Amino acid sequence: MATLGLVEYADASPEVRAIYDDIMAVRKTDWINNFWKALAHDPKTLRRTWESIKEIMAPGALDPLMKEMIYLAVSSTNQCGYCIASHTAGARKAGMTDEMFAELMAVVGMANETNRLVSGYQVEIDERFLTTK
Amino acid sequence: MATLGLVEYADASPEVRAIYDDIMAVRKTDWINNFWKALAHDPKTLRRTWESIKEIMAPGALDPLMKEMIYLAVSSTNQCGYCIASHTAGARKAGMTDEMFAELMAVVGMANETNRLVSGYQVEIDERFLTTK
Amino acid sequence: MATLGLVEYADASPEVRAIYDDIMAVRKTDWINNFWKALAHDPKTLRRTWESIKEIMAPGALDPLMKEMIYLAVSSTNQCGYCIASHTAGARKAGMTDEMFAELMAVVGMANETNRLVSGYQVEIDERFLTTK
Amino acid sequence: MATLGLVEYADASPEVRAIYDDIMAVRKTDWINNFWKALAHDPKTLRRTWESIKEIMAPGALDPLMKEMIYLAVSSTNQCGYCIASHTAGARKAGMTDEMFAELMAVVGMANETNRLVSGYQVEIDERFLTTK
Amino acid sequence: MATLGLVEYADASPEVRAIYDDIMAVRKTDWINNFWKALAHDPKTLRRTWESIKEIMAPGALDPLMKEMIYLAVSSTNQCGYCIASHTAGARKAGMTDEMFAELMAVVGMANETNRLVSGYQVEIDERFLTTK
Amino acid sequence: MATLGLVEYADASPEVRAIYDDIMAVRKTDWINNFWKALAHDPKTLRRTWESIKEIMAPGALDPLMKEMIYLAVSSTNQCGYCIASHTAGARKAGMTDEMFAELMAVVGMANETNRLVSGYQVEIDERFLTTK
Repeated sequence: MATLGLVEYADASPEVRAIYDDIMAVRKTDWINNFWKALAHDPKTLRRTWESIKEIMAPGALDPLMKEMIYLAVSSTNQCGYCIASHTAGARKAGMTDEMFAELMAVVGMANETNRLVSGYQVEIDERFLTTK
Repeated sequence: MATLGLVEYADASPEVRAIYDDIMAVRKTDWINNFWKALAHDPKTLRRTWESIKEIMAPGALDPLMKEMIYLAVSSTNQCGYCIASHTAGARKAGMTDEMFAELMAVVGMANETNRLVSGYQVEIDERFLTTK
Repeated sequence: MATLGLVEYADASPEVRAIYDDIMAVRKTDWINNFWKALAHDPKTLRRTWESIKEIMAPGALDPLMKEMIYLAVSSTNQCGYCIASHTAGARKAGMTDEMFAELMAVVGMANETNRLVSGYQVEIDERFLTTK
Repeated sequence: MATLGLVEYADASPEVRAIYDDIMAVRKTDWINNFWKALAHDPKTLRRTWESIKEIMAPGALDPLMKEMIYLAVSSTNQCGYCIASHTAGARKAGMTDEMFAELMAVVGMANETNRLVSGYQVEIDERFLTTK
Repeated sequence: MATLGLVEYADASPEVRAIYDDIMAVRKTDWINNFWKALAHDPKTLRRTWESIKEIMAPGALDPLMKEMIYLAVSSTNQCGYCIASHTAGARKAGMTDEMFAELMAVVGMANETNRLVSGYQVEIDERFLTTK
Repeated sequence: MATLGLVEYADASPEVRAIYDDIMAVRKTDWINNFWKALAHDPKTLRRTWESIKEIMAPGALDPLMKEMIYLAVSSTNQCGYCIASHTAGARKAGMTDEMFAELMAVVGMANETNRLVSGYQVEIDERFLTTK
């Protein structure tokens, strides 16, 4: 159970409700997931985290599907169960197919393997990789 | 310096040379980076790793640029200096612009932050996230 | 369920009971949590771990509350569910308020984010940071 | 070398300069460390990261020294060389003595050890730790 | 529940069944654990992962027990609950006693501790450790 | 450079010298590596860490070579450069051949890969793995 409990919409302050409303509007959903309800005990962190995510996950040079898949790649590497569940849902909503998910996982697995081969073998960075751009 | 040293092309066995040749052909480059030269002391691991990466990184439901960026996202999360340098180069070669790199990093940073907020606050997975697909 | 099972006080050897007694005395509690009961199958590790924690967590240049919060910061970063639950309880007992918990989590989240921005952007250490003290 | 290079004050846009000025004013220093110069290629991330850190690291329920030490605890756990160097400097500036540093490291080391003993032994969370507050 | 669900033997394609048969033959068991059933939605990853594990875990310079214990050491460090459970079972089947398990955990715990003391104290590599072999 | 600097034998207190002497005697070497010299600024942590390692790394149900290789497996997973360098040297001294090193790395790499496939695919623990022993 969340350390400070969950703040339901009905019990939320006007400040928190406004953020909940914005989350639902931006995400085009009619519910708030537990992450935000847990953070709501600290309205400053709730606001800062939501404003940051809203800015970061908006369409830009990368589209929302790509961003959700990167989020899922990081969460799988860190083995964060909650984050994997929520961003798998987010990526599916943004268009991730089963084939894309499977390829994403294959890359994540391989990268985690070679990251350790590199460190274990003490491989030095090639000169050619050291230049900017 | 790599634990077992680096196997240069000139000193490589025919088996290792064949893999080096395939790496250069598939990647359309004329050199071999240190990672492969370090693994070459163990031809079985060299072959298995290369065959796996060749299969995983080939175009599929996700394109090569997306795959390189996911590789970079994982490597940044794991803070593997060599892997970050080599896959930044790989992603650029596949078309990553400065803007795409910056957005990738923003997502990676945010995901690493919220992964820990979730665990620290002990947030439970929402029922809606638990269903398959 | 713990790999080797849990050693309850009633079933413990005199050696293990003495350590359980010391844990309860130092911590001013009347029960032993599962961590110690799991380790008790290896009395050497039980003793060494308890003696180390007793020494490390004692008041010193840092007070016990600060030490519990640092323990919680590490456990949240590593996403160790058991450790987060037990050290949240420990920190509360030592005086951590909801406000302190929320600020702790905000710092932990931010540090995990910037750690990856630093590595992903391949930022070199400033000369000024390299000097001792 | 930083992936996108470093943006020096003399070469910075007015938007970036204003953030640099604020960093120096808030931190009471006359220089900008490489982290910010690397991020400056992405002014949105520079601004968001700085505004977040300014809010999070300000005095509150926890004082600045405590916050810097928590930052250092996380960075040591993640083994981020740059972050360890910069936040060791930050913590010293905020008043961390050698004794405090040594005790901080002792707790960080121990927490990393017991986090893995818990997972390796598959220890279940005690009922008493599951209640909110 | 596994993201793509589990593929039971009765529902598997001939290609997947052949891999399941090989897993059971090599491991001398009569059942397939969930890991493979989850991967089976992506036959390429199922095949590649199984062929890699079959090659890596076969007796060689290190015996199967040692390899299972190394697998368990890594999984405990990464705090992967599923992997700890399955490789504890695998190591036991290969001959791991309670005493060996306890010593393994002690080393894993200590290594995780000193890894962070090294990074936190910013210890430089000794000249003598830098030479190859 | 180590945060608190390195304590050389000639400058060490009698207490620290006694520990240095014990390290050299137990390890049958005539020098002290930087890790201990860095810790020596905190004699309590120096003593506790050395006494713990001496107990843990002594021959038991697992032999010293196996223990050094497990230490190296953990350090490679955590990507601790110093620890990889020092424990590669330690494992070699205890008898690790090039073939053993290569197989160790192959297992470490694979375990890091499947750890993330398991988490990314959200694989649940099989009933059969949940029983004690």
